[in-house]
Amino acid sequence: MRHGERDMTIWGLETFLFTTPTSYSPSLNKLANNGLVFTQFYVSSPICTPSRAGLLTGRYATRSGTYPDTFKPDDIGGLPLNETTIAEALKPVGYRTGMIGKWHLGYGKDGQYQPSHQGFDWYYGIPYTHAECSCGPCYYPDAPCDQGNCQPQYVHCPLFANTTIVEQPVDLLTLDAKYAALATDFIRFNAQEQTPFFLYYAFHHLHIPIYSGKNFTKSTIRGHYGDALAELDWAVGEVMDTLEALNIDNNTLIFFSSDNGPALALKQLGGSAGLLKCGKSTTYEGGPRVPGIAYWPGRITPGYTTELASTLDLLPTICSIAEAPLPLATLDGVDISRVLFHGQTSPRETFYYYPGEPEPYVGVYAVRFKQFKAHFFTSGAGNSVSNDPDCKPGNFRLRKPPLLFDLHEDPSEQFDIAGRPEYEGLLQKMIQLKRDFDYNMVWAPSQINRGQNEEYQPCCKAGCTEQLVKCCQCDALDGMPQVFRSTCIAVPRT
Amino acid sequence: MRHGERDMTIWGLETFLFTTPTSYSPSLNKLANNGLVFTQFYVSSPICTPSRAGLLTGRYATRSGTYPDTFKPDDIGGLPLNETTIAEALKPVGYRTGMIGKWHLGYGKDGQYQPSHQGFDWYYGIPYTHAECSCGPCYYPDAPCDQGNCQPQYVHCPLFANTTIVEQPVDLLTLDAKYAALATDFIRFNAQEQTPFFLYYAFHHLHIPIYSGKNFTKSTIRGHYGDALAELDWAVGEVMDTLEALNIDNNTLIFFSSDNGPALALKQLGGSAGLLKCGKSTTYEGGPRVPGIAYWPGRITPGYTTELASTLDLLPTICSIAEAPLPLATLDGVDISRVLFHGQTSPRETFYYYPGEPEPYVGVYAVRFKQFKAHFFTSGAGNSVSNDPDCKPGNFRLRKPPLLFDLHEDPSEQFDIAGRPEYEGLLQKMIQLKRDFDYNMVWAPSQINRGQNEEYQPCCKAGCTEQLVKCCQCDALDGMPQVFRSTCIAVPRT
Repeated sequence: MRHGERDMTIWGLETFLFTTPTSYSPSLNKLANNGLVFTQFYVSSPICTPSRAGLLTGRYATRSGTYPDTFKPDDIGGLPLNETTIAEALKPVGYRTGMIGKWHLGYGKDGQYQPSHQGFDWYYGIPYTHAECSCGPCYYPDAPCDQGNCQPQYVHCPLFANTTIVEQPVDLLTLDAKYAALATDFIRFNAQEQTPFFLYYAFHHLHIPIYSGKNFTKSTIRGHYGDALAELDWAVGEVMDTLEALNIDNNTLIFFSSDNGPALALKQLGGSAGLLKCGKSTTYEGGPRVPGIAYWPGRITPGYTTELASTLDLLPTICSIAEAPLPLATLDGVDISRVLFHGQTSPRETFYYYPGEPEPYVGVYAVRFKQFKAHFFTSGAGNSVSNDPDCKPGNFRLRKPPLLFDLHEDPSEQFDIAGRPEYEGLLQKMIQLKRDFDYNMVWAPSQINRGQNEEYQPCCKAGCTEQLVKCCQCDALDGMPQVFRSTCIAVPRT
Repeated sequence: MRHGERDMTIWGLETFLFTTPTSYSPSLNKLANNGLVFTQFYVSSPICTPSRAGLLTGRYATRSGTYPDTFKPDDIGGLPLNETTIAEALKPVGYRTGMIGKWHLGYGKDGQYQPSHQGFDWYYGIPYTHAECSCGPCYYPDAPCDQGNCQPQYVHCPLFANTTIVEQPVDLLTLDAKYAALATDFIRFNAQEQTPFFLYYAFHHLHIPIYSGKNFTKSTIRGHYGDALAELDWAVGEVMDTLEALNIDNNTLIFFSSDNGPALALKQLGGSAGLLKCGKSTTYEGGPRVPGIAYWPGRITPGYTTELASTLDLLPTICSIAEAPLPLATLDGVDISRVLFHGQTSPRETFYYYPGEPEPYVGVYAVRFKQFKAHFFTSGAGNSVSNDPDCKPGNFRLRKPPLLFDLHEDPSEQFDIAGRPEYEGLLQKMIQLKRDFDYNMVWAPSQINRGQNEEYQPCCKAGCTEQLVKCCQCDALDGMPQVFRSTCIAVPRT
């Protein structure tokens, strides 16, 4: 972010925790050891699409209609174009903006919801999850994905450079190397031009299908998941090395996080929630509580913080750092600059937990106030099947009385303290917080319920309207990154 | 350890893991960030007494008779005096040896099994767990222990300086400050005399009753458990600071570990096993798998290692570093110097899991070979009651066929792979490992089954033979540390 001349932000999305004993992640360790680690950091939804919408807009997905569940390749809807993303907030103050990787905020008719229409000057990636594509190999040199993860009803994954498909099917085994090359190219290009920059780098790792390229397949002792993590870690290292080589690391904020907790049902391919309860798609801590690392040598003092924060807070914080005006919209995030730079307490005292498929007549399932969390509704999820019966699907429950946990003393949500008389007043306050929040939430119509149109899927060939899977394949495609330079030299400035 | 002139080792025993989000432990973080962290480190038993016997002798407790369960204050038996402790192994090569804290390897008639009779020149501590004493306050200024943890059938906790009781009842609220003062005094004294030293510093933290002194009660956001951890952490920092101030940190090995996993049944006072299954007293990973940190600035490269190691390996490793002859006894530990100093693979490929109450006709419950673990018997434990039904007591099970886990990909022991044909040969090998190990184990008679004699309990007053709890209290007692200096100036040398 702007504080000096130029800066950047990374979010490494997808399931990840540091606590596993056999992970190989030297770059993330470096980031953590030399950055500020948030031990109580939340995303605004326990699944991909609404979580990413919250991150980019500073608003719960209920406000933008990016619910329930996630966008599919043929979805008609997308993140509404009148929502202001971090990229759009930064452009008026002179930033060049780039996005690499998994978008998952809609594609729509003629790609109308692509990142290029949401404030990003450079976009290089796949507009949705690589789990919703026809099949390709996942491990070097040509091994298939575990458990055959692929969905042959959809077209092969397209790789976009801005609004142009440059590969279809995408080659997962070379994808991360290309991403990292473009990330470093983007950084160098802006450094040369002395243009401040914002980069949103959204990994496909570690979502299924787990995959890894030549240098990482069989590179770790943790199996396929460990190999994929090592590839992600390598990319983080490439970015860090580039910033250091250009001597702009002292001018650059890196923020690393994830979009939701682990999909425990996928066993060895799903990751671990460590001591947190349940995982992806639930409102137990294993769903929305994720890593959060802020790294800025010379500006952010390395260490740990137990202060509350969320990806919702990134937009207001980034605007504050870059001295950019806030969007004219109701924000759910708060400026946490004082936590980052001054070690002060967070202005955030509450957090509200929506499930992946929220309903207006239910509202938030749980509320956090300071160290306390009250569950009003709980549910397991297919994504979180595990030994703990609470995590299994089909057990949606009204909690009457609510469950109350002290997360500072009981981070695993095991010891209900709701019945203790000394907490009666607190519980009443938390009930009121839920009532107020639910009452004041303005629900946008669901973009995901707008439905699908098979023909809206991205296709590298003009004129494919039938048998898209077979038709939408191309041999020789445009390379990158010249496409970016030719289209984006002139950055709009105010 | 000896390599240069003088060195030391610390073990901070008792339940502890780094992964909790609200712990305050800056000194342990410093130790971990600047030391070598073992992510797969084991104690030889999931409960106190046999674990500590294994640590000090390099031998499973079955060989020394320090089983089943733990020594009580009135136990007749103890760690046999013909066992060679690390302290006894180091004295012939000129080390002054000290022990601070919880012994738990027997007291016996007239204190015949005290540390002073097991090679320690200086001893300052309580000869057993502070959970087996008559009651005293646990929190500053005079709050009682949670859940009334105390056992009024035993005498008040005695604090020994060598073989002399200097406090009874001990004041838990000032105990750790005294311990830390003696630790730093021991280090300074040896530094002045240029005598190589070995210090075994065994915290009572974080065993129940949880307690904390003036500077730590209500010092953290994690409640009583966090306060106790903060006090432990402070003591670690005192030792580190002293070594640095004396400029001998580059000559000193610090090794930090624990004696077993968390007692989950104690809820907020029991600690967390993170992603490991079950806890104290079980042979699931949560029982014997503990932190292991080796710290030696300039000699040990900071980082992580996934190599297998155990407290059993400390005696042979320390003897190797100090160039001391190995004891003339069958050792279960191996020299891991090459892991510590050269980043090489561990000579340890196997680990054998005994429960807290082993039986010769059952043998080890589980075997680890490389990354694989086969469970032949499993059992929950009263100490490990939690949401996972496998951890609950009363479910001792023969596993037929055995359970097989790949701990590198599945550290939480969730996904049994025993049925896969590709592992059939491996499983046969692991069955053979169990058979060989069990067959070759030489079981010493149980010292703990020798029984109790109420009159053997330590008592500060001569002549107390009845109403010991009331009688064994003293007003004015000898101070320390003059007692050590007067008795130990002349260190035996070979």
